[in-house]
Amino acid sequence: MSRWWRTAATLSLGAGLGVSASRLWTPASSEEDHQGDGLLGGVPVVPVPRVHASGMTAGPGSSGALMKYGFPSLSNVRTRESYVSSYDPRTRTPSWVIERLSGASVSGTADRKLCDFKEDDSVHVFHRATNTDYRGSGLDRGHMAAAANHKWSQKAMEDTFYLSNVAPQNPHLNHNAWNNLEKLCRSLTRSYANVYVCTGPLYLPRQEADGKLYVRYQVVGRNHVAVPTHFFKVLILERGQGEGVELRSYVLPNEPVDEKLPLEGFLVPIESIERASGLLFVPNIMKRSGVTVHAIAAK
Amino acid sequence: MSRWWRTAATLSLGAGLGVSASRLWTPASSEEDHQGDGLLGGVPVVPVPRVHASGMTAGPGSSGALMKYGFPSLSNVRTRESYVSSYDPRTRTPSWVIERLSGASVSGTADRKLCDFKEDDSVHVFHRATNTDYRGSGLDRGHMAAAANHKWSQKAMEDTFYLSNVAPQNPHLNHNAWNNLEKLCRSLTRSYANVYVCTGPLYLPRQEADGKLYVRYQVVGRNHVAVPTHFFKVLILERGQGEGVELRSYVLPNEPVDEKLPLEGFLVPIESIERASGLLFVPNIMKRSGVTVHAIAAK
Repeated sequence: MSRWWRTAATLSLGAGLGVSASRLWTPASSEEDHQGDGLLGGVPVVPVPRVHASGMTAGPGSSGALMKYGFPSLSNVRTRESYVSSYDPRTRTPSWVIERLSGASVSGTADRKLCDFKEDDSVHVFHRATNTDYRGSGLDRGHMAAAANHKWSQKAMEDTFYLSNVAPQNPHLNHNAWNNLEKLCRSLTRSYANVYVCTGPLYLPRQEADGKLYVRYQVVGRNHVAVPTHFFKVLILERGQGEGVELRSYVLPNEPVDEKLPLEGFLVPIESIERASGLLFVPNIMKRSGVTVHAIAAK
Repeated sequence: MSRWWRTAATLSLGAGLGVSASRLWTPASSEEDHQGDGLLGGVPVVPVPRVHASGMTAGPGSSGALMKYGFPSLSNVRTRESYVSSYDPRTRTPSWVIERLSGASVSGTADRKLCDFKEDDSVHVFHRATNTDYRGSGLDRGHMAAAANHKWSQKAMEDTFYLSNVAPQNPHLNHNAWNNLEKLCRSLTRSYANVYVCTGPLYLPRQEADGKLYVRYQVVGRNHVAVPTHFFKVLILERGQGEGVELRSYVLPNEPVDEKLPLEGFLVPIESIERASGLLFVPNIMKRSGVTVHAIAAK
């Protein structure tokens, strides 16, 4: 079984057996309690269980469809043409941004050349990132919801250029491995009816010389925009009516990543992202779908 | 004029002149734009303007009185017998905790010896601090809402022992300067009808050898409870009916502080806390009071 299949989770939901969703995600095994390979080193993780079932409505929804699987948190939520986001006023970046991609949304004539990065006036001036903050930092204004995901509408694409949808990102990462991950998300619309993508920053601790764990990250510009140590993408993949959903979650470090490395190598258990980010994905997906779990298969 | 008076703000509110509250707090002068004395080094600050007015109802309220001046944020708000708090699931500490002290609340027979620190089951297990996380860290479980502020009720005092009201604190600070600041808050109930106290952690950047600014903080225990670099206390002081309110805001570093240093030396402009914490105090106070500002005096 490939690494991909070990870490991606297939969630398929049915009714009636009364197994609470939260129980599913309580650490039951400690064998992978600490992932040792560095990416999320020191973050307690457990394997994501595989859940098989059926009966979930998975068709494309209306304009409120982004809420289908709930939101990872409810702080400072903003709704745009192309995404819903939660803003972190302390870091001056989003906590998360959710988009829904489909074959229709990733094709169209919207032109990136007509878009400019812009301040988000809905954020208080004390907590707002500006273009000046990024200038001279050596870091890109990295889209969380990617511009090219929203070719269906010029307005939708322009909305991705709000600095509240942006975090300081290593340029090499942005133009190579991260760009490839964004392309992968779009290419998945060929195999899945809907691709929900949730993207955000992480601030992961590292062990320092004194043996203790520290979170350390740069801040740039007059407004001290935080430079995340890592970024995550959580994908909720809908095949179609009644075929259940599949979950894939990636973490990439905010540094140059050799694009020859397969992206599957950056798949992580969703729980590691939930623990490190302070967000919750799976309990919301379970809760929002309004059904209980009817079967659990260990990995 | 003493430092105390320079940095404490007297807010007195009246009706009718249509000066928007937000304008008040927009940086108008850059002369103190960067506080140079290290405590909030690198955090852009501006002087807090002094606002004179009258006509604000300042008497003690009902059980919902803690909301009188609004909340600094609306994320994960929890209401307890003795305080209202906002929990930060990423740091596993509160973002802020608000209490209202009066002569009556700080006296009584509640006994600290009957209280034990306890996990907050209302927090998801992925984001919850435990007593084990603190064990062996060399750090205290530092109350945000202080236990001794709530002698009026055993339940109220016990509620301050939830670990969601706690952050890792340097023991010397906790037992000396910080304790003195808590005592000061209680002693102010002799001069003021009500003392609203809002307390929370800060994660302030420092310049490192490469000339760049970094936020760096330790995390302790299996759940990676964040160790704040500093703590703030914002005091909203009500003299009585129609006499306006006064604001005092303190920042202390999370390290040993010589208790011979006068606490007035730790007063900072409220704006520096608002910028660094991602929270807002003053606009809420203005907005909640339902009146517009009728006079502004420069510092």
